Amino acid sequence: MDNGKPFKTVALIGRQNTPGIGEPLLRLAESIERRGFTLIFEAGTATEIDLARNGGGLRHPPRVASTQEIGEQADVAVVLGGDGTMLGIGRELARYSTPLIGVNHGRLGFITDIPIQDMKTVVPELLDGQFEREERSLLEARIVRSGKTIYDALAFNDVVVNRSGFSGMADLRLVVDGRFMYTQRSDGLIVATPTGSTAYALASQGPILHPQLGGMVIVPIAPQSLSNRPIVLPDSSEISIQVIGGREVNVNFDMQSFTSVELEDTIEIRRSSFRVPFLHPVGYSYYATLRKKLYWNEHPANEPRSS
Amino acid sequence: MDNGKPFKTVALIGRQNTPGIGEPLLRLAESIERRGFTLIFEAGTATEIDLARNGGGLRHPPRVASTQEIGEQADVAVVLGGDGTMLGIGRELARYSTPLIGVNHGRLGFITDIPIQDMKTVVPELLDGQFEREERSLLEARIVRSGKTIYDALAFNDVVVNRSGFSGMADLRLVVDGRFMYTQRSDGLIVATPTGSTAYALASQGPILHPQLGGMVIVPIAPQSLSNRPIVLPDSSEISIQVIGGREVNVNFDMQSFTSVELEDTIEIRRSSFRVPFLHPVGYSYYATLRKKLYWNEHPANEPRSS
Amino acid sequence: MDNGKPFKTVALIGRQNTPGIGEPLLRLAESIERRGFTLIFEAGTATEIDLARNGGGLRHPPRVASTQEIGEQADVAVVLGGDGTMLGIGRELARYSTPLIGVNHGRLGFITDIPIQDMKTVVPELLDGQFEREERSLLEARIVRSGKTIYDALAFNDVVVNRSGFSGMADLRLVVDGRFMYTQRSDGLIVATPTGSTAYALASQGPILHPQLGGMVIVPIAPQSLSNRPIVLPDSSEISIQVIGGREVNVNFDMQSFTSVELEDTIEIRRSSFRVPFLHPVGYSYYATLRKKLYWNEHPANEPRSS
Amino acid sequence: MDNGKPFKTVALIGRQNTPGIGEPLLRLAESIERRGFTLIFEAGTATEIDLARNGGGLRHPPRVASTQEIGEQADVAVVLGGDGTMLGIGRELARYSTPLIGVNHGRLGFITDIPIQDMKTVVPELLDGQFEREERSLLEARIVRSGKTIYDALAFNDVVVNRSGFSGMADLRLVVDGRFMYTQRSDGLIVATPTGSTAYALASQGPILHPQLGGMVIVPIAPQSLSNRPIVLPDSSEISIQVIGGREVNVNFDMQSFTSVELEDTIEIRRSSFRVPFLHPVGYSYYATLRKKLYWNEHPANEPRSS
Repeated sequence: MDNGKPFKTVALIGRQNTPGIGEPLLRLAESIERRGFTLIFEAGTATEIDLARNGGGLRHPPRVASTQEIGEQADVAVVLGGDGTMLGIGRELARYSTPLIGVNHGRLGFITDIPIQDMKTVVPELLDGQFEREERSLLEARIVRSGKTIYDALAFNDVVVNRSGFSGMADLRLVVDGRFMYTQRSDGLIVATPTGSTAYALASQGPILHPQLGGMVIVPIAPQSLSNRPIVLPDSSEISIQVIGGREVNVNFDMQSFTSVELEDTIEIRRSSFRVPFLHPVGYSYYATLRKKLYWNEHPANEPRSS
Repeated sequence: MDNGKPFKTVALIGRQNTPGIGEPLLRLAESIERRGFTLIFEAGTATEIDLARNGGGLRHPPRVASTQEIGEQADVAVVLGGDGTMLGIGRELARYSTPLIGVNHGRLGFITDIPIQDMKTVVPELLDGQFEREERSLLEARIVRSGKTIYDALAFNDVVVNRSGFSGMADLRLVVDGRFMYTQRSDGLIVATPTGSTAYALASQGPILHPQLGGMVIVPIAPQSLSNRPIVLPDSSEISIQVIGGREVNVNFDMQSFTSVELEDTIEIRRSSFRVPFLHPVGYSYYATLRKKLYWNEHPANEPRSS
Repeated sequence: MDNGKPFKTVALIGRQNTPGIGEPLLRLAESIERRGFTLIFEAGTATEIDLARNGGGLRHPPRVASTQEIGEQADVAVVLGGDGTMLGIGRELARYSTPLIGVNHGRLGFITDIPIQDMKTVVPELLDGQFEREERSLLEARIVRSGKTIYDALAFNDVVVNRSGFSGMADLRLVVDGRFMYTQRSDGLIVATPTGSTAYALASQGPILHPQLGGMVIVPIAPQSLSNRPIVLPDSSEISIQVIGGREVNVNFDMQSFTSVELEDTIEIRRSSFRVPFLHPVGYSYYATLRKKLYWNEHPANEPRSS
Repeated sequence: MDNGKPFKTVALIGRQNTPGIGEPLLRLAESIERRGFTLIFEAGTATEIDLARNGGGLRHPPRVASTQEIGEQADVAVVLGGDGTMLGIGRELARYSTPLIGVNHGRLGFITDIPIQDMKTVVPELLDGQFEREERSLLEARIVRSGKTIYDALAFNDVVVNRSGFSGMADLRLVVDGRFMYTQRSDGLIVATPTGSTAYALASQGPILHPQLGGMVIVPIAPQSLSNRPIVLPDSSEISIQVIGGREVNVNFDMQSFTSVELEDTIEIRRSSFRVPFLHPVGYSYYATLRKKLYWNEHPANEPRSS
């Protein structure tokens, strides 16, 4: 780009249904605009904060665009919200490889790693090119019924196959890369990316996968077979899950969209060819986030074990 | 009783919807009748096996009765089926303290501990008084909405509060004996008796509770707080679970009856005053059942750890 | 007692090898003495804080006594230290049923539940009779070699059988109440009281046992059999652990005393007939301690699961 | 090679201290020799089975060689023993990239996947070129004291840092790729390869890593921080573990060699540049091995959950 900077057009996206998000979002917009970047507001965000009425502090009438247009036109997107907001926008922008910057509105997130109080100094630095870039993988999944794909979706965190709470266990038959793995009676199972490994999968006893690991993890949920354990597969794996027993089984993607499946349906999951670039402040530490979110000790306890 | 034997009237109960159960049930009935006991067939069982047509091998026209009548009239009940059959009949007969003998039709159960091939020799021995008696506890639970009980039930295994598979996490607020325990975001939680500790609770990482332990266990299901752990409470505890967040939350009892709950509903759980007597063959070992069901080693492995 | 108060003679015990413990201990002693109680200093504590030189602020020359004399003469003992200090003194005073009050010097403990900054107001209230009394159980264990007891000890938290870190796995054979339970190849196992259930046993995936539960828990440590799970036994259980394989196996009690065992040795464990009374401030909540120590949520998270 | 076959010289290695291993080893040798391969016996194996006296059934006087010579001269090595034997020989031959064929003498192993009763038909097929080749990664570790390497070793399964059973917890400080991860108070920790993920790491609640995953896993052993979880790192990671507290800490490699470490020592671990090729029969299934070793179900249970 002409000024030697990596980005020119910056999209702004805020969490929906979030009272009070307009004010910090507009302050952020103003400080970005002052640095000479062209701004685009995501359409839903513009409506949410009533941009037409409240955007008076901006020098230029701000452009408003759909996420598709953002994907096509923006060089980078700044997201103000929680991890859920990032997951949603990440899935939508995945095909455009738009880099994402995540500012947390609320508690520190796993992937929205810039605290809101730091955004006015940190975000401009990132936009000026001082960042660490990291690529995160996604899953693509499709549900196949009688040989036909009836649903497909991307997942940033996880694809979850779940019994309904109103029914007995689900029986699932797993085949990986064409080889039979096992039949499992359980509440269901989770297939998670490294990004998703710290979400629902972690609560279900799954391991943490480092974001740069080329792999995905299958985590059984309350499996009747006590020796059933999470298994981490290479990135190239193709997972096929057939529903062979149980009623009211459903599949969800990032716990944000839910679909019913029937007996004999197959859910096919593999890594998406898309990857989502994240931009972190220089010196960003994945482990620092883990320590904070998981209350890990920084210093050894200074008392004997028994105390 | 007149002949110095503990029992005179024996009820027979079989698993429903089980092709092929008529034949072993009738053979068992004949061997019991030959020993001089009075037989009662549970009504559903009589229908299931078409007793009127198939009962010709019995000397006396068999009596047919409801479970309530069995509770009032029988000295002991012999159940042929799986653990689910025992759970159901156990709940129904709990108020009558009718002792149960469990014969397993299918795989060995945790509580149907007499293999079907041994029943013709073992069951008569038990009826003659050669048994080990054990009492199992139950839970009683009620759902309270706006101060009124809208549902109540007994549970032999467990009371499970569960989010629906189609929704996000449930937020539950626990109070035990009037003292606040914690607020939990999770898939739900299980309150299990010792009998239920080897069922769903075990699949959800709960501990095994010995049947004679005076306690019950709360097992969180996929709790977001990673340090949330199963907690075993004394038998006298009164557990109150309030639904403070989440949609489509439901409660089930022994995974056999399901009820929806709404926000602010409270589920109150405590030990029932009823107890269900089980009769086991002399020399019965609870640990032998665990070893068999859970593939525990009887002998040390004869190879080094790494092999 | 003459003044209608429950206690007259109060023992004071501080943690050993703790620089800076003298000053708060003496301030506590003064405030107790001012209330009219007779003070006894535990001998090691008196030496540790150089009582002869530093005790000048006390009105009466303080009495100094061994823990045995404290057990015989004191009505109550106030312990300033960590949970480890409480465990040690609890074992020593168990046979005398001396009630214990625990003040935490350092981080909040599971059983030293009075913060040091509150001690000058709270301890006198307890000594005046405003307390909640709770009894904690202990284990007694003995090591039997060729039919002879070669070692015996009390444990307040746990009895741990452990392989040495320099050797392969241990093979252990468990018999409970004369009935064979299983043979286990593992790093060892833990038998814990309710008090100990929140110590090493919890780190090894054991459940939390409420202090009033009449039970103890066996927790396997890294068992080779993946379906091996913690099992909670009634208080009346007699556990026998025979070492049938492995080198350099040892037993420890509350992780404070360690003893080597040899092949064929048997460790026999059962509840002690002694119980240790704890005095808590009125309104004490076991669950509040758990929440604080384990970072349990008090309020539901206010973000979606994925964030 | 001249006959169009992949291998010409075949090494034979048997487990040490294994009565009865001579007979199957010699029968295997004869059937290999008959197929026209040149045989080398590993020196320790030759002594173990008294080859000079018992090798009369072979046509040619068998060559005897050290593992180093085997590495230099053999095209492939057939191992008869358990997984431990494979681990040991795998480490020794790693620098030579000698492919390994594992025949199990005893129970089925995770990596010795040819049952002894099938060896006479299966091993010649593999030697003739009908195999599936798989490469397994190893770890290289070194212990650094005051800036100097005092010990280094390869590990095929795992590098384990462990407190002694006679001491309190260990405090370990982890740095990965130059970034601080956490300080951990625990019994120790395991760094495992995919091969090692089904050994000790699995018993300590680690996940299964597929052999083709480019990663390694850190599994904490009984960590005091309950939210500490296994974490899977990319293959390129450099792990540094510093001992900052605890007495009698030691490190072992594949649980076969043990070394004491002192306070401030650092254990540095990364993937070795060597990889060990395994040859499996055509149609080999890693999942079939898991199912068998871990008692996973092949078919759904045919009873309700509660039974």
